[in-house]
Amino acid sequence: MNGPEIDRLIQLLARLPGLGPRSARRAVLHLVKRRDALLVPLADALADVGRNVQVCRVCGNLDTSDPCALCADASRDDSILCVVEDPGDLWALERARAFRGRYHVLGGTLSAIRGVGPDDLTIAALVERAHNPAVKEIIIALNATVDGQTTAHVLAERLAGCSAAISRLAHGVPVGGELDYLDDGTLTAALRARRPLGG
Amino acid sequence: MNGPEIDRLIQLLARLPGLGPRSARRAVLHLVKRRDALLVPLADALADVGRNVQVCRVCGNLDTSDPCALCADASRDDSILCVVEDPGDLWALERARAFRGRYHVLGGTLSAIRGVGPDDLTIAALVERAHNPAVKEIIIALNATVDGQTTAHVLAERLAGCSAAISRLAHGVPVGGELDYLDDGTLTAALRARRPLGG
Repeated sequence: MNGPEIDRLIQLLARLPGLGPRSARRAVLHLVKRRDALLVPLADALADVGRNVQVCRVCGNLDTSDPCALCADASRDDSILCVVEDPGDLWALERARAFRGRYHVLGGTLSAIRGVGPDDLTIAALVERAHNPAVKEIIIALNATVDGQTTAHVLAERLAGCSAAISRLAHGVPVGGELDYLDDGTLTAALRARRPLGG
Repeated sequence: MNGPEIDRLIQLLARLPGLGPRSARRAVLHLVKRRDALLVPLADALADVGRNVQVCRVCGNLDTSDPCALCADASRDDSILCVVEDPGDLWALERARAFRGRYHVLGGTLSAIRGVGPDDLTIAALVERAHNPAVKEIIIALNATVDGQTTAHVLAERLAGCSAAISRLAHGVPVGGELDYLDDGTLTAALRARRPLGG
């Protein structure tokens, strides 16, 4: 009905997370109607990223330079290392502007079901970085999922030999969150970790 | 935090229907992890469509040839013309394989709110095609929305002078649909248009 070029584009777009065949068709119509404003720039941006973006050899972030801009930034604090699952988590922390140290991207979490073992992640590189005496603290900032927490435990074991302090993100009530909508686990964690008011 | 190339790609992807900034970021991570399997082919497919896909001068469909493959197909029935809002509707009818005539893509619906008047649609071209004596029937296959039905009425007025019969799609219970979940309008339409059983 429509040319093979359009069908191929629909099939490829439908493989993006959050899009299926129907929304991919809608997206293609949207793109073709906005050829100069959207379709051509998007094709160029994709080709650009495909050509230039690489994995940082130091931390595992994605950037056009290697080492990435964060690893090359001399103003950042070398004494704190923040371990995240993937670059998306790193971007989220950077958007919050709450951390000025260095990062280490694990590349995922351990999972027996998905067949991800320690050698599939950058755990060995992390242990090596952790033994640098300049590193004073390592923050394990993995997702608060079962896999994330299992991986955090394994990391804590592997890092036991190094001199840096190991910490993890606090669990508790999200800022802006309402107690009525929170799960029992979060409420229990928030109660246990309660802090003196004004402290 | 991430290079300007990645930010630009996220911003462009976020403008697709069905994606927002968060899902665009997820999509970019997904793409970068699958550079050869998905990112590069998608960039090529977009560039291909941008270069080659055009609007058919006869019916308004999108295709790499002009006239499009449907207009050029000599085996299709010249005596029936099916009027649809946009190429997505035409693709839906083609997927159903229920129609072997010709199409006419209006390019949208009339809407006072959105400022779409008769001159913004291909109504004049439709009237011209309708006056071809080979055309015996014109099926108005617009969406069963308020705008779609208003536009259908305007089309019926404009086409009153031509010799072809004017019809519209039937309203009724969708195949596989349950009465309990249908709105009053659909149930009323289905009752009014009831047909003899086995007829």
